[in-house]
Amino acid sequence: MDLLDILGPMRIFGEKNATVDLKINFIAPHNLNPVRSTQQVEITPHYTLDNAPKMDFFVIPGGMGARVYAEKKDVIKKIKARVEEATWCMSICTGAGILAKTGLVDGFNMTTNKAAFEWPVSLGPNVNWIKRARWVQDGKFVSSSGVSAGIDAALYILSEWTSFAHADVIATKIEYSWHTDANDDPFADKYPYTRG
Amino acid sequence: MDLLDILGPMRIFGEKNATVDLKINFIAPHNLNPVRSTQQVEITPHYTLDNAPKMDFFVIPGGMGARVYAEKKDVIKKIKARVEEATWCMSICTGAGILAKTGLVDGFNMTTNKAAFEWPVSLGPNVNWIKRARWVQDGKFVSSSGVSAGIDAALYILSEWTSFAHADVIATKIEYSWHTDANDDPFADKYPYTRG
Repeated sequence: MDLLDILGPMRIFGEKNATVDLKINFIAPHNLNPVRSTQQVEITPHYTLDNAPKMDFFVIPGGMGARVYAEKKDVIKKIKARVEEATWCMSICTGAGILAKTGLVDGFNMTTNKAAFEWPVSLGPNVNWIKRARWVQDGKFVSSSGVSAGIDAALYILSEWTSFAHADVIATKIEYSWHTDANDDPFADKYPYTRG
Repeated sequence: MDLLDILGPMRIFGEKNATVDLKINFIAPHNLNPVRSTQQVEITPHYTLDNAPKMDFFVIPGGMGARVYAEKKDVIKKIKARVEEATWCMSICTGAGILAKTGLVDGFNMTTNKAAFEWPVSLGPNVNWIKRARWVQDGKFVSSSGVSAGIDAALYILSEWTSFAHADVIATKIEYSWHTDANDDPFADKYPYTRG
């Protein structure tokens, strides 16, 4: 996984002052061994996909692991069941590829990271991929662009759960220059695309 | 500790493409028990202040723990020795209070978070505190403003070690809207100060 993909949003939702009462659980596919991020730092899972309790909010980070698990049919099947039972589902960066692979977002609007746009797109030929978006909401799904954009999408979700003013207080508290407009995507033009 | 204070910068320095060959070690004051961040997520230390190897680059995050350890003379003494042996030292957010308490930055320019500016300032009466700064470098010390500003300061340090163009590639890769100018501090005016 990418370290900031998952922990950027968790900095928002884990904040006591966020006024949302979320218990953060990390879920690994098969076992509780520490999961090494692409940036060295390890995170220890609380549950596996088999024994985790029902999640109200299911978050799918990106990173090199997404590419591995997108090809594992048994893992995708279990993730699909988790996405189905959640009230909200968020993907960050190439985590969009995993979500696309479940088939649950066929016909939905989604975005993904701009540096490696083509890979998630290839997994969701029936998804309506949005190239210029910091994040996209469609129904219960919120998909963010790359890495840091997950923080913006998390603040957006927090604003939907509470209020814009409240989410802005949290952003200000962590001195994060939030892209408050989902269409404000300064990275969309930085990479060329041949398809998608 | 604050989760993003420490892991935001580690996302920059831990990146394989960062082209700097850093081994990230987490150091706890007394033992190797997992350290719970203010945002629930736990990080497991690799070393204690007593048995950690010499650090070339010593990073001091903020968070509620900073307020606890700033009052522990034995811990400050050990941190002081670590700061002295490091070639570079970075503080994030209220981590500046810990650094100030060592006395090693007396007479130096520093900044700290804007939401709780007064506490670190109270620990360093002989530090020249800069109120408007995303980050400040003075000699081997780089102090960042609150939480997210640590990512900007980390990108700045990476640019000093490599080049601006290279750091900008990393910022673009993680789709982070970097404050490339240390004086560009949109949060300085958001909080009133009565002193400092």
